[in-house]
Amino acid sequence: MDTEHPSKRWFASDNNASVHPAIMEALDRANHGHAIAYGDDVITARVLGLFSETFGAQSETFLVWNGTGANVMAIAAATRPWEGVVCTDLAHIDVDETGAAEHIAGVKLFTVPGTDGKLTPDAIRDRVSGLGRVHSNLPRLVSISQPTETGLVYGIEELAALGELCRERGLHLHVDGARLANAAVSLGVGLREAAGPADVLSFGGTKNGLMFGEAVVFLNPALAQGAGHLRKNVLQLDCKMRYLAAQYEAYLADGLWRANAAHANDIARRLGEAAAGRLGLRLAYARHANIVFAELPPGAIDAALENWFFYVDRATSVARWVCSWDNTAEDVSAFADDLAAALGRA
Amino acid sequence: MDTEHPSKRWFASDNNASVHPAIMEALDRANHGHAIAYGDDVITARVLGLFSETFGAQSETFLVWNGTGANVMAIAAATRPWEGVVCTDLAHIDVDETGAAEHIAGVKLFTVPGTDGKLTPDAIRDRVSGLGRVHSNLPRLVSISQPTETGLVYGIEELAALGELCRERGLHLHVDGARLANAAVSLGVGLREAAGPADVLSFGGTKNGLMFGEAVVFLNPALAQGAGHLRKNVLQLDCKMRYLAAQYEAYLADGLWRANAAHANDIARRLGEAAAGRLGLRLAYARHANIVFAELPPGAIDAALENWFFYVDRATSVARWVCSWDNTAEDVSAFADDLAAALGRA
Amino acid sequence: MDTEHPSKRWFASDNNASVHPAIMEALDRANHGHAIAYGDDVITARVLGLFSETFGAQSETFLVWNGTGANVMAIAAATRPWEGVVCTDLAHIDVDETGAAEHIAGVKLFTVPGTDGKLTPDAIRDRVSGLGRVHSNLPRLVSISQPTETGLVYGIEELAALGELCRERGLHLHVDGARLANAAVSLGVGLREAAGPADVLSFGGTKNGLMFGEAVVFLNPALAQGAGHLRKNVLQLDCKMRYLAAQYEAYLADGLWRANAAHANDIARRLGEAAAGRLGLRLAYARHANIVFAELPPGAIDAALENWFFYVDRATSVARWVCSWDNTAEDVSAFADDLAAALGRA
Amino acid sequence: MDTEHPSKRWFASDNNASVHPAIMEALDRANHGHAIAYGDDVITARVLGLFSETFGAQSETFLVWNGTGANVMAIAAATRPWEGVVCTDLAHIDVDETGAAEHIAGVKLFTVPGTDGKLTPDAIRDRVSGLGRVHSNLPRLVSISQPTETGLVYGIEELAALGELCRERGLHLHVDGARLANAAVSLGVGLREAAGPADVLSFGGTKNGLMFGEAVVFLNPALAQGAGHLRKNVLQLDCKMRYLAAQYEAYLADGLWRANAAHANDIARRLGEAAAGRLGLRLAYARHANIVFAELPPGAIDAALENWFFYVDRATSVARWVCSWDNTAEDVSAFADDLAAALGRA
Repeated sequence: MDTEHPSKRWFASDNNASVHPAIMEALDRANHGHAIAYGDDVITARVLGLFSETFGAQSETFLVWNGTGANVMAIAAATRPWEGVVCTDLAHIDVDETGAAEHIAGVKLFTVPGTDGKLTPDAIRDRVSGLGRVHSNLPRLVSISQPTETGLVYGIEELAALGELCRERGLHLHVDGARLANAAVSLGVGLREAAGPADVLSFGGTKNGLMFGEAVVFLNPALAQGAGHLRKNVLQLDCKMRYLAAQYEAYLADGLWRANAAHANDIARRLGEAAAGRLGLRLAYARHANIVFAELPPGAIDAALENWFFYVDRATSVARWVCSWDNTAEDVSAFADDLAAALGRA
Repeated sequence: MDTEHPSKRWFASDNNASVHPAIMEALDRANHGHAIAYGDDVITARVLGLFSETFGAQSETFLVWNGTGANVMAIAAATRPWEGVVCTDLAHIDVDETGAAEHIAGVKLFTVPGTDGKLTPDAIRDRVSGLGRVHSNLPRLVSISQPTETGLVYGIEELAALGELCRERGLHLHVDGARLANAAVSLGVGLREAAGPADVLSFGGTKNGLMFGEAVVFLNPALAQGAGHLRKNVLQLDCKMRYLAAQYEAYLADGLWRANAAHANDIARRLGEAAAGRLGLRLAYARHANIVFAELPPGAIDAALENWFFYVDRATSVARWVCSWDNTAEDVSAFADDLAAALGRA
Repeated sequence: MDTEHPSKRWFASDNNASVHPAIMEALDRANHGHAIAYGDDVITARVLGLFSETFGAQSETFLVWNGTGANVMAIAAATRPWEGVVCTDLAHIDVDETGAAEHIAGVKLFTVPGTDGKLTPDAIRDRVSGLGRVHSNLPRLVSISQPTETGLVYGIEELAALGELCRERGLHLHVDGARLANAAVSLGVGLREAAGPADVLSFGGTKNGLMFGEAVVFLNPALAQGAGHLRKNVLQLDCKMRYLAAQYEAYLADGLWRANAAHANDIARRLGEAAAGRLGLRLAYARHANIVFAELPPGAIDAALENWFFYVDRATSVARWVCSWDNTAEDVSAFADDLAAALGRA
Repeated sequence: MDTEHPSKRWFASDNNASVHPAIMEALDRANHGHAIAYGDDVITARVLGLFSETFGAQSETFLVWNGTGANVMAIAAATRPWEGVVCTDLAHIDVDETGAAEHIAGVKLFTVPGTDGKLTPDAIRDRVSGLGRVHSNLPRLVSISQPTETGLVYGIEELAALGELCRERGLHLHVDGARLANAAVSLGVGLREAAGPADVLSFGGTKNGLMFGEAVVFLNPALAQGAGHLRKNVLQLDCKMRYLAAQYEAYLADGLWRANAAHANDIARRLGEAAAGRLGLRLAYARHANIVFAELPPGAIDAALENWFFYVDRATSVARWVCSWDNTAEDVSAFADDLAAALGRA
């Protein structure tokens, strides 16, 4: 498709979306005079206050550049190099971060085959059983994505059960919350609740209307020891921090996170309904948040891609469609029309 | 001082400065519709073309988050973990990056005591002499800052002499060009010339009017092998890359880098002249670019800091004043007036 | 069982065995007067000559402390931290080295589920397919164990096919040859042939009669660049090297490697025949070298362990019996008798 | 000189010396039957008991391969990658370990220029002053060598003062005791006292009559958490551990450490007296333990090296002579005679 037209939108990923106007305004507002660098400015002070309100007074938050940076910093804080992290074999930290956790935190990832991308207490228990020997890494951290890479949202009870297992086994819990806002909206809860009993959270905004920047939130402050130094050491300290902080201030202050995520989830609901209904496609996973996975007839894939850019697994013919804060109901209609044509159902 | 007033400016650092309006406009212009993530967008394609024009067709450029990220990526690309980097003991990579080079690239830094922050061929030769044994790291890279942390600019012939030494000893040359624009203006040359015979360059914009983002420019493309993977591995891949690229497009396209640096250097010239002239202060280093180092009477330091925020080494009473694209001649006058009062010369 | 009696032998592992008398004599012979440390002694010079004779004039060999050290040094030499290593999910480097490859070489291991512990060109091709993106490590090395952790030996043609696949895909081949001597004897070839088209080999002796020490043999000398420094950097440089070298001189000079391995393989043949014949046990893998895997009736395991120490996977009831240079036919008979009793077949 | 004659001895280094007969006998005694690998054998159990007797019931000891391995394991246990280690610029960990601490523990070394190789509380205080910022590593560990690389021994009160400073600043203390026995003999105290208030000790034997192997002794057991896994992760776990353990059993059980060190120190006393007396040489450092540093007339160096192998710093004409357990009074006489001839004083 023509991905070069400056006002075109599609469903390839929420990091393909534009920046929300309220964020652009916040950047403009921040852009006056000088501000002390590296986070010693008033906007950063305000936004850290908002994080405390959101995640609890005991929490400690560190703004960082990006999601991979947030995940690696969280893992490096919570582990030593001879320890291990249990995650699914679909986890972003395993398949989409070019070995950053291994190289920089030094750890091993203990992957669990995930049919639908969720970890369960039983799967964790099985994976770590027998791992106490000095010849293998010592499991220390469980890492889940909320929502998962398959678009599913862990329920409050599922989170509690994972927390219980972690306590029982002396493991910490990391939540990769690159899309935590979408999970919270899906569950109808706040951000804190959506993170469950996490000890440390990678909290994202880039996929939900920000320009750049994520946050590492230590809900268990014992893990935050030295984290200020760690952030710099892992290349995640923004010098002109006020511009990163200003975005999160706008994101958290007036519920922008919720409004954007609610919109994206609603667009995904519409797209999922069109796919399963009018288009007669099988959804590969339930639609919980802002992602729809649909199985396409192999012969229709090329035609579907002609006018739209998205990712499709040629081996399984499953397409992934991610909805963004800036997608519209009209985008869904236009896409569904073109898909119908590609499927010969126009 | 009151650093919280939103329109106040000072001389603490060029990373305290605001973002240039042309950069804000470029961000606005980029903010329409969707764009493929991770650099596969049209703005990134255009800006990489501008980098090729600027640094030569054989060069390869990778946009990254920040200066420390650029330095570590450059070092990791050019070295193996049992190798070493020669730099001064004032080098940013040694004293201001929380051991990121050691932790992430694995290397050892071989520091040379620098009286004025410059490396010389003789100093390098002395430092690496006798380092061939397997019991110490193998020197592989020389890293200089252009301008230096002391604000001095390497002349074209000094750069050539360093390049000659590197060739002779089989060493690569890295230039930390966080303020390369200021050096180029000082030398009256282009960016390519100001980098001298560098094999790899950390090219900065954040200190000269950008919001965020730096570039690793491989002038020796042999070092760029695998650099795309390395960038992600060291947490430096911006997903919504168009916003980083748009800033560099505005920075390189119409000479914004030169205009901003020329202005900052000129403000520093005024400030240096006021310091050495009217205020009668000794300058600790010659003023080449946008930084002035002045020796204050110890008894006047606290008074000087009352209305202005800047860094001063209490052991030597040397203050560092950095001038930014947004400082004005009026800022200089106001600062000089207050300094005069603090010095009892009002 | 009583594992404390000083003259008792069992079948738990070949690293439980004693040191061969010829090795003890070599250590004694080396123990006169002073010798330059770190390998600049005459015994080391002689043994490196033997390695050149054995593995070819172009090869370069570095003696190291242990098998994990050899594997990590080989991997670190052949890869960069953003690259990956393809191996089976039974590979010693994955399951028995406490994440040393990840922590020290920085790489990711791409595991392939192995039913019998062997890698095939097809399995490698499948695993690396689609791994070119910058979001995942770049496959660079294939690592196999010869013999495998399941005791199977790759045939000459299997090795050639793996080499062909590696050449085709630009991958290097590492062979973990902790028991290479046993594989060579099994194949009826020399050590060089048993390593197949390896670029780099971990060559072991500790499991075949030595006291300590392994060797990293770079058959592709391009990978040996900087290896002397790397060895020290990864903690593998023995200062009193003559005692390590003397062992390998005795091991390589008069065919001790072959005699010991032939004996151990023969003992394993006897044990395998007793297990499958008289005891009626199913062998979990074919017996190629010096290891026998036998399926025990779950109810007989505890009785079998009463007088003998060995490892058994309680989930599958498969026992692993490893035969050493110092095991005897009488050991086999005694063990078989006790097993028969445990199985109720006495 | 001819370093190839198998019964020749010299004064180049105590790691050039042979293995003490009692150690060879211990290896022979250990060489019967099978023993469980990786330290689960009876000899290792016994030797760990001896370490507890020697260093206190609360201490935890891990046998490792070599001195660099011991140092890196100690540092990795006591620090995180964003932390730093204060040491002199003569420290073995800084100048003789090919960057292993930086690469594997990830830390930065904060070196203090040492005129005589000793660290003092004042020097440490100066070095860490102002290092709290997130832009530089956080000092966590002080590392001293006992005796120093210059052959000096820290007195009991000097050690206490260092311990006091560490407590005051929240730093841990590491003692590199590759030659701790020589220091203990010099001080007339036991090994525990010679290590002073160390939190973690690298305890050597290889330079004092062993074949291989060192020990990491955690006197502060809080630092030993996970150390069993760490040992394997940093490639320091000996599989046939009984042979390493047997050496330390012989070394600790009957005072062999003391006898060997006392002998070596006495030989050094004789050599120092001959150098300063009959030969009229200036000693560059006081002779405390088993090392003598003497300033040679530059013109006599080549003649002195003709019949004897030793290291000499050509820039300062200072020669280092290390005495071993196997050097004799006759060695001293012969060496002094040849030196006298080289000096034209025969």
